Amino acid sequence: MTDIKDKSIQIFLDELASKAPTPGGGSAAAIMGAQAAALISMVCNLTLGKPQYADVESQMQTLLEKTETLRFSLTEMIKADIEVFNRLMTTYGLPKDSDEQKNIRSEAIQTVLKEATTVPLQCAQACREIIELGRIAAEKGNVNVISDAGVAVMAGYGALKSAALNVYINVGSIKDKAFANEKLAELEKILSGADATTEEIYQIVKNKL
Amino acid sequence: MTDIKDKSIQIFLDELASKAPTPGGGSAAAIMGAQAAALISMVCNLTLGKPQYADVESQMQTLLEKTETLRFSLTEMIKADIEVFNRLMTTYGLPKDSDEQKNIRSEAIQTVLKEATTVPLQCAQACREIIELGRIAAEKGNVNVISDAGVAVMAGYGALKSAALNVYINVGSIKDKAFANEKLAELEKILSGADATTEEIYQIVKNKL
Repeated sequence: MTDIKDKSIQIFLDELASKAPTPGGGSAAAIMGAQAAALISMVCNLTLGKPQYADVESQMQTLLEKTETLRFSLTEMIKADIEVFNRLMTTYGLPKDSDEQKNIRSEAIQTVLKEATTVPLQCAQACREIIELGRIAAEKGNVNVISDAGVAVMAGYGALKSAALNVYINVGSIKDKAFANEKLAELEKILSGADATTEEIYQIVKNKL
Repeated sequence: MTDIKDKSIQIFLDELASKAPTPGGGSAAAIMGAQAAALISMVCNLTLGKPQYADVESQMQTLLEKTETLRFSLTEMIKADIEVFNRLMTTYGLPKDSDEQKNIRSEAIQTVLKEATTVPLQCAQACREIIELGRIAAEKGNVNVISDAGVAVMAGYGALKSAALNVYINVGSIKDKAFANEKLAELEKILSGADATTEEIYQIVKNKL
């Protein structure tokens, strides 16, 4: 089985559009997030080594290390979303003829639903970090590619809000309300201030164009 | 030369992150837009033929035709952005030793800058349409995959705002102010109401989860 990240963009888009249940919105969100991280890395790579940006050299180096780490994580999440979805489908397919089978099936579903909540929550967390890192790129990166910092922030924002929907959809079916509420609280913390921060960085970029 | 859409996601992301000038934010925006279109297509494909959605069958068929057309256009724009950027770099590299050469170079740059404004403007227009089409998917599509309609709208929104930055950056260097103002007016018309519409559709989706 070809790892999804090794498939061509065209094939990924065809599979996304098809009636096949995966890839879906979770993988799309992870790719948006990975693109966001990659674009900040690009701004760093086109700022590093330039004499006129010598004063931000070490800051850009640190930024690049962070965005490349996040890009790696988000690229792995493209696949993680598919794997957890497939596990969820498998558990829904478990036999439910006897009470014992019903209990086993229900417990298995609940276990996988918790994983299916954790994956998009991690995606949301990574994207929120990317938005903040985008601010550094927008404020201090090579002004010739500053629009790419803006695109990064918008991609990160789109991915964040998308990942949030994938948390909401799974949390709704979780019977362990303490777990569900904890995850929702984590998500709300991640989302807090994201709209305003995104708009603020977008305007910083727009004003430099 | 491999068409960019036939490159793997991993290679695209690596190239996006690198110091190579292309692919950049324009291609990233087009991919986000294409993902948005694909996700609405997926919602349509998972709604069509379902007895409980028989009353929206023909509406979903029309929607699918529109999103697949937009997906095709946006996928082509991944490459178009690179091609126009490369042409721009070629014109900047033209000789400028004599006054005649300077004039030829300047005119060539101005011609390509107009193209470089048109490509992201077309991307923005396509993404604005996708957001509106996302509303139909969110309101009438199979509720089991409704979060994908929400992801589509967020991807379309991220792509729209990204494409806008790519219009602004090129318009700023165009000397033909009538053309520049016309394109900016077109962009403002495309952007008008997009923030509120996106938020509205997002809430429609969120409330169904």
